Amino acid sequence: MKLNILGCYSATPRTFTNPTSQVLEINNHIFLIDCGEGTQVQLRKNKIKFSRIKHIFISHLHGDHFFGLVGLISTFRLLGRDTELHIYSPKGLKEVITLQMKLANSWTNYKLTFHELTNKESEIVFEDEKVEVRTIPLDHRIYTNGFLFKEKPGDRKLDMNAVLNENIDVSYYRKLKQGADVTNEAGEVVKNETVTKAPNKPKSYAFCSDTAYKEDIIPLIKNVDVLYHESTFLEKHAKLAAPTKHSTAKQAASIAKQANVGQLILGHYSTRYDDLNVFKTEAQTIFDNVVLGDDGKVFEF
Amino acid sequence: MKLNILGCYSATPRTFTNPTSQVLEINNHIFLIDCGEGTQVQLRKNKIKFSRIKHIFISHLHGDHFFGLVGLISTFRLLGRDTELHIYSPKGLKEVITLQMKLANSWTNYKLTFHELTNKESEIVFEDEKVEVRTIPLDHRIYTNGFLFKEKPGDRKLDMNAVLNENIDVSYYRKLKQGADVTNEAGEVVKNETVTKAPNKPKSYAFCSDTAYKEDIIPLIKNVDVLYHESTFLEKHAKLAAPTKHSTAKQAASIAKQANVGQLILGHYSTRYDDLNVFKTEAQTIFDNVVLGDDGKVFEF
Repeated sequence: MKLNILGCYSATPRTFTNPTSQVLEINNHIFLIDCGEGTQVQLRKNKIKFSRIKHIFISHLHGDHFFGLVGLISTFRLLGRDTELHIYSPKGLKEVITLQMKLANSWTNYKLTFHELTNKESEIVFEDEKVEVRTIPLDHRIYTNGFLFKEKPGDRKLDMNAVLNENIDVSYYRKLKQGADVTNEAGEVVKNETVTKAPNKPKSYAFCSDTAYKEDIIPLIKNVDVLYHESTFLEKHAKLAAPTKHSTAKQAASIAKQANVGQLILGHYSTRYDDLNVFKTEAQTIFDNVVLGDDGKVFEF
Repeated sequence: MKLNILGCYSATPRTFTNPTSQVLEINNHIFLIDCGEGTQVQLRKNKIKFSRIKHIFISHLHGDHFFGLVGLISTFRLLGRDTELHIYSPKGLKEVITLQMKLANSWTNYKLTFHELTNKESEIVFEDEKVEVRTIPLDHRIYTNGFLFKEKPGDRKLDMNAVLNENIDVSYYRKLKQGADVTNEAGEVVKNETVTKAPNKPKSYAFCSDTAYKEDIIPLIKNVDVLYHESTFLEKHAKLAAPTKHSTAKQAASIAKQANVGQLILGHYSTRYDDLNVFKTEAQTIFDNVVLGDDGKVFEF
């Protein structure tokens, strides 16, 4: 998995900072997560191939998370896209986008499919053989979902020396990878674990923005490799975090700790702060493996 | 008058180029003309004070001319704006903006007034004591207006030596400035032109984007000081200009020449061209005083 943060500041695009958008590479998918104004330029700057984006996940309909989407959809058309685009978002986005296309008398020449979400319980929104994406219901001023991206467990790996020693016919290899015991050419049962190795541990990434402190999400994101959790404020501004339904760095770290995640990435910083290192310091009083998200940063895990 | 071009490239925002947006300073007004994606960042980069923008003119509802507007309106709110904002645009924009505010459950805390245009004839859309703005109906794929910004003729200027020599009472000064003859203290009629001078020539600026070649606009923009006229294509791609209802550099120059404008600024270049100087060379075969518009360029006139 590779996570490329295109923008991770709250509220407005500014000269040197961008609103929320991320690109997650996972098993040959390029998933775009949120799409604030300027995302298409950030995609260019970060050298992401537009045509590889086939699924876009929008957390909620505050402008700093989706105002760049209609422009990106238009640009796809201008670039001659013909592959289908799927958009997963709260209900309402389809109306906004189609209204603007109607006014411009300009429709896409590729199939555009909206998957509008209204469920307040976690649900699977995308799934194929290798990957599953489910919502993480968050607590914000409007209906908001985070997203949990999980690799599915892969096949077991053949220990080729052992397999050949056991004289197992090649036609059984697939069963072996699936974990079954098989019979060798001598007619003896061969225990699976004696000729195969465990698959790589499936990786997982949880994106949680925007949200108030919400312990309900902990079971969903338990043990993920990487958690991006918003930290709009520092604890000294907790009084601003509560009514706006945002989190502090300390709260983000508390969620990370309770969920036993591998690493916590912070972001969605309020523009009132000049020194982001304080976010890291504050979070590390609770949870050690914290990194500061920033526009253009790439994480491989 | 001062014209600050924030963006003048067609179609999509890119790493180093921006879609259409301009700021015109005229008699203490800061008029924003069109508002492609990224305009609010360009305003910051060009150090335009957000609070001074009270009137926004949108030519048409293709995305590269208005996708930055909803974000700018949101940012005004976040910055605590309280002064009224007027938006002049084709019908439909109000629905787009209010739908997005409704979905975000986020309304402006300042008065937002939409002036939606449908008239296919030129009409005055803004007027005060010193300035008049009228539409320039253009010929594009959807309903589109250019805008003509004109200073009104100012008062005549008192020739104070002559006024004092003639012994004219101060209570007549205002009438003199308005061009009237007055009576001096000796009871004699004083001809206005003997004690006043002509006012400064009122300046005018015409913004024409996007449009096919349209001679009908010539009477409206006759003798303007500066004309911005789109030149999406070069003459060698005239076959692309016609169906998309855009102009070539040569056509823009032909309009400039027939309208006897002071200066022609080109813009709205298709991104297919690497060397913009060819636009200037082509236009100058028809009309001499041509400059290339470019993002960040400032013209004072």
